[in-house]
Amino acid sequence: MNIVVQNIERADAEIVAGLAECGVATVHEAQGRIGLLASYMRPIYAGARVAASAVTVSVAPCDNWMIHVAVEQMKAGDIMVVAPTSPSDAGYFGDLLAESVRARGGVGLVIDAGVRDVRDLTEMGFPVWSKAVCAQGTVKETLGSVNVPVVCAGALVNPGDVIVADDDGVCAVARADAAEVLKKARARVANEDDKRKRLAAGELGLDIYNMRQRLAEKGLKYV
Amino acid sequence: MNIVVQNIERADAEIVAGLAECGVATVHEAQGRIGLLASYMRPIYAGARVAASAVTVSVAPCDNWMIHVAVEQMKAGDIMVVAPTSPSDAGYFGDLLAESVRARGGVGLVIDAGVRDVRDLTEMGFPVWSKAVCAQGTVKETLGSVNVPVVCAGALVNPGDVIVADDDGVCAVARADAAEVLKKARARVANEDDKRKRLAAGELGLDIYNMRQRLAEKGLKYV
Amino acid sequence: MNIVVQNIERADAEIVAGLAECGVATVHEAQGRIGLLASYMRPIYAGARVAASAVTVSVAPCDNWMIHVAVEQMKAGDIMVVAPTSPSDAGYFGDLLAESVRARGGVGLVIDAGVRDVRDLTEMGFPVWSKAVCAQGTVKETLGSVNVPVVCAGALVNPGDVIVADDDGVCAVARADAAEVLKKARARVANEDDKRKRLAAGELGLDIYNMRQRLAEKGLKYV
Amino acid sequence: MNIVVQNIERADAEIVAGLAECGVATVHEAQGRIGLLASYMRPIYAGARVAASAVTVSVAPCDNWMIHVAVEQMKAGDIMVVAPTSPSDAGYFGDLLAESVRARGGVGLVIDAGVRDVRDLTEMGFPVWSKAVCAQGTVKETLGSVNVPVVCAGALVNPGDVIVADDDGVCAVARADAAEVLKKARARVANEDDKRKRLAAGELGLDIYNMRQRLAEKGLKYV
Amino acid sequence: MNIVVQNIERADAEIVAGLAECGVATVHEAQGRIGLLASYMRPIYAGARVAASAVTVSVAPCDNWMIHVAVEQMKAGDIMVVAPTSPSDAGYFGDLLAESVRARGGVGLVIDAGVRDVRDLTEMGFPVWSKAVCAQGTVKETLGSVNVPVVCAGALVNPGDVIVADDDGVCAVARADAAEVLKKARARVANEDDKRKRLAAGELGLDIYNMRQRLAEKGLKYV
Amino acid sequence: MNIVVQNIERADAEIVAGLAECGVATVHEAQGRIGLLASYMRPIYAGARVAASAVTVSVAPCDNWMIHVAVEQMKAGDIMVVAPTSPSDAGYFGDLLAESVRARGGVGLVIDAGVRDVRDLTEMGFPVWSKAVCAQGTVKETLGSVNVPVVCAGALVNPGDVIVADDDGVCAVARADAAEVLKKARARVANEDDKRKRLAAGELGLDIYNMRQRLAEKGLKYV
Repeated sequence: MNIVVQNIERADAEIVAGLAECGVATVHEAQGRIGLLASYMRPIYAGARVAASAVTVSVAPCDNWMIHVAVEQMKAGDIMVVAPTSPSDAGYFGDLLAESVRARGGVGLVIDAGVRDVRDLTEMGFPVWSKAVCAQGTVKETLGSVNVPVVCAGALVNPGDVIVADDDGVCAVARADAAEVLKKARARVANEDDKRKRLAAGELGLDIYNMRQRLAEKGLKYV
Repeated sequence: MNIVVQNIERADAEIVAGLAECGVATVHEAQGRIGLLASYMRPIYAGARVAASAVTVSVAPCDNWMIHVAVEQMKAGDIMVVAPTSPSDAGYFGDLLAESVRARGGVGLVIDAGVRDVRDLTEMGFPVWSKAVCAQGTVKETLGSVNVPVVCAGALVNPGDVIVADDDGVCAVARADAAEVLKKARARVANEDDKRKRLAAGELGLDIYNMRQRLAEKGLKYV
Repeated sequence: MNIVVQNIERADAEIVAGLAECGVATVHEAQGRIGLLASYMRPIYAGARVAASAVTVSVAPCDNWMIHVAVEQMKAGDIMVVAPTSPSDAGYFGDLLAESVRARGGVGLVIDAGVRDVRDLTEMGFPVWSKAVCAQGTVKETLGSVNVPVVCAGALVNPGDVIVADDDGVCAVARADAAEVLKKARARVANEDDKRKRLAAGELGLDIYNMRQRLAEKGLKYV
Repeated sequence: MNIVVQNIERADAEIVAGLAECGVATVHEAQGRIGLLASYMRPIYAGARVAASAVTVSVAPCDNWMIHVAVEQMKAGDIMVVAPTSPSDAGYFGDLLAESVRARGGVGLVIDAGVRDVRDLTEMGFPVWSKAVCAQGTVKETLGSVNVPVVCAGALVNPGDVIVADDDGVCAVARADAAEVLKKARARVANEDDKRKRLAAGELGLDIYNMRQRLAEKGLKYV
Repeated sequence: MNIVVQNIERADAEIVAGLAECGVATVHEAQGRIGLLASYMRPIYAGARVAASAVTVSVAPCDNWMIHVAVEQMKAGDIMVVAPTSPSDAGYFGDLLAESVRARGGVGLVIDAGVRDVRDLTEMGFPVWSKAVCAQGTVKETLGSVNVPVVCAGALVNPGDVIVADDDGVCAVARADAAEVLKKARARVANEDDKRKRLAAGELGLDIYNMRQRLAEKGLKYV
Repeated sequence: MNIVVQNIERADAEIVAGLAECGVATVHEAQGRIGLLASYMRPIYAGARVAASAVTVSVAPCDNWMIHVAVEQMKAGDIMVVAPTSPSDAGYFGDLLAESVRARGGVGLVIDAGVRDVRDLTEMGFPVWSKAVCAQGTVKETLGSVNVPVVCAGALVNPGDVIVADDDGVCAVARADAAEVLKKARARVANEDDKRKRLAAGELGLDIYNMRQRLAEKGLKYV
């Protein structure tokens, strides 16, 4: 029942890097408005922006044992995605584990629970998106699993999925869809650049997007 | 039922500027402790401090269509105040809309829902006070209204009301009361400057405000 | 029933300073994972790190009268710990009170309620850990007590307890235990420094902590 | 600033009674999906169903003084609508006040705060919709106002508005619109009765509402 | 992207019935403490106890169009499981839809959002587990999907999974595991019956489960 | 560190019984508005009304081992009061434990966490006040303590304190104060009976409590 899957497939590094540039909001839109983690998942400091392959960890509430197990499974460019089997705000992860993740080439953490040592993590430039900041310690008593599908902050994350995270939150992209999503995301970015210029120059969205007729048909009245 | 009110009255620009200087806590006190939006309304970055005339927008949940309509109604010195008709944390507003608002002279956004692209908004210096940061996209299907009275984060806001917002939150001042409130707020500021000096010099509030006798009468015992 | 205890014992200043250096997470662990305030208690700005002796204040909801009374009881190196008798997010404390606390040598505030003037407090470098930022004013009508045991954000705090607070939250250490807790905390710090180096060098927690055998005994399978 | 408005207009008793029969969901729909109080407003017991004219009360947090003032303003068929100026879960209202309201002909209470003595209130058959059940006592120190516009649980309520409340929650209907809303609500009820029979007999909403073509046009695929 | 899967496999009716008898807590334990929906999912009335095959529905926030589509896919013994793509408390479902579901043989609803007409639903004996009771109406503008995997209240539910629901909440059992889970659940029930008798007769769990030695080894002291 | 205190003092049985009759709201008032647990502590069924001596249990999050230990310490007329050291909604307690508590003469449970088997508990007439209903199982790995002071739902509870609980929530009375509190509570009950009659007969609180003059002095205006 409790397993560690050692070999997972990951998306191509260039695709992952491309998704990081596009950002959470664009990627989420590009894949049809799916994959977003709950908005309570907040970064511990502003400005971080990453995309990385998910090493998933299913943990017992207030028990961080499996995080130690998961570190060994991480490779360069991975991000750890931790989901407790029952809600918890405890501080599963701190600066020592961050050193360990970083030593493996890991680039950050997404955890539907608490994190601690946030000052040290901030100084290290180790980004974390979490539900809480909490110093509460955890135990090492109960097994979980590594690299199995998890539900993290309301979103299904499979091992090897691409996690995109920035100041807007966290989005999961299925590994198999990553190339296609990147293509669509880049198209959105290109399209938005043009729109941004026109809007900044004073054109209205009402005109750019041809909304006036449909608004009138729906019955909007100007008084 | 769904209307856009095109001509609204606004408070005098000097009064608005004066209220910005006084800040939310002082203005809220000066008008008798009313008008405060719920404390879950937080700025997306620290340090912003604005006062502006409200262009109000009533929107459907997860539908940002009327925000595009509202942009056209904004003038220099306005702030957009968005209230969904049913609770929503979705990301109604991002950097493109901010460019559009700014092109009209708008100075910011107050939204009882979510906002996205907060990194770009922060770089633009476009202040937003919101209930959530959330990348979730919205649709453009259902009409709402612009420049009608709205309840935003528990406070009634009429179009043209002065919105004062800073790191302490958001306060609405009725347009008709703005001049009088500014007068009282400035009196408070002057009074507080004196108090601040005395307190910083070591005098006690117990003495400055003559509290000792009333405390004793109420029965406070020193042991 | 409503009392002000004027003479409380405090921990030795060097012990208090030592606890500040160790930080919340370490101190909380060192004393057996007790004493942590709820994780909703957040600092108004990042980077503050203090330890100080608690002057406790039991206040009525939305009534900050006793805070004025408590200021007089503060000495150099104290921190005020405020707990309402019924939940409240109102803004009990602002920059004027901070000036007054600082004039007495007080170093900060922990309040299971709201705080306001956070921009000024940040500029002053006056740290506050609170449940909310809220401009809502309070009254001065109902007595409370100063330097009695209080439950603040779910933790029991006695007057003179050492409060340790940083970006991870707030922890209370019983005065009588402070020396012993410091000793254990320093041992943890020393131990962690060594671990940090080994982890940063790529050793795994699985090996450092000898976890592999116990994981296997519990039934973990690698696939 | 603190006033008691003694003469308010009320809707016609027959209209009020008609709205009670239609229920919250129908009335809310009939008036264009507005006027609903937040869904955290729950009845203290199941099965109550009322419509009544609002006597509004603006109260200070944790202060129920104005409720005593408001009782005097109640007439037969009224319901008291209480909104604190700052959030509070305290128990503003219990069985004694219910006796007093009932003696004036009042039919219930809507309060964006706490209520207590719920066992007694249930035995009396005195319905209350509240944010919380809480025994915490309140003080009588700060004035508020009676029969002024209030924002209660996110909805604007004017004195004399018709409050409709049942197991689904609470809805406010503007007095001036009450007759028209009743007409539309009754039309909905009649229409729904027919629909209910057809649906219960196995017809599908897809067919009754002619949805299939529009679904196909939008791109829904059956696989 | 938006699909309706018309043919799904369901678990054997006898297995489903067996799981209903065992109840949520037992089934959840029997399958290794997985599959539980969040504890905010509460029944609209006490005493309902069902197990049924899931017809899953992914809906847009505040949009119940796909529920109408899903009704057609329901068969005798099914339960509808609705998950919005963005959080919503709106009232997606009421008595008319319940009549329609019942006409197809459906036995209830699990919805990570709001439900309305709860009085009528209670009188019908139509059980619903929901996040909220809310009269807020929804629109019919945006497509979703039927019988695709959904994350509902934090749990992954696949179409055809067995949903077990009672006063303790809701649990999902993978269809393929249902027979095995039932076997284990029945073993637990049998075992618990014996334990219940011994405990009711005054034997202690400390003795029945042989806990005393392990407690002593861990260091528990009796004083 | 982890202890079980075997001999605790309890209040006199007649005093405990007297407090039960007075109820939570009255007892809370009689002792000066202290001792109330947070209003999120709700009974699993309506109508229960108990007073009993607290056997306190400090438990690890999601670990119910110490509850088994605590059962042995219960005597006739006791109630178990459980507080996790870190927040948890897991289901620590079900019908088997209730049988065991009842076999010792225990009368109920107060738990700042989750409970399960609520249907069975309701049928047994075993009252529980909890933060959540949740089927999530717990482990038996980490020690805690029995009959030590605990903070439960924001209130300090010492072993042997009298717990009063009914539909309004839960209140703790210090053992040493119980006789005095009962006296005051009975005085309140007597006084309220008289008030209730006068209010029910149509007298106003404004007159009974002589409020009119003070309201006028504070500045209340009738318009």
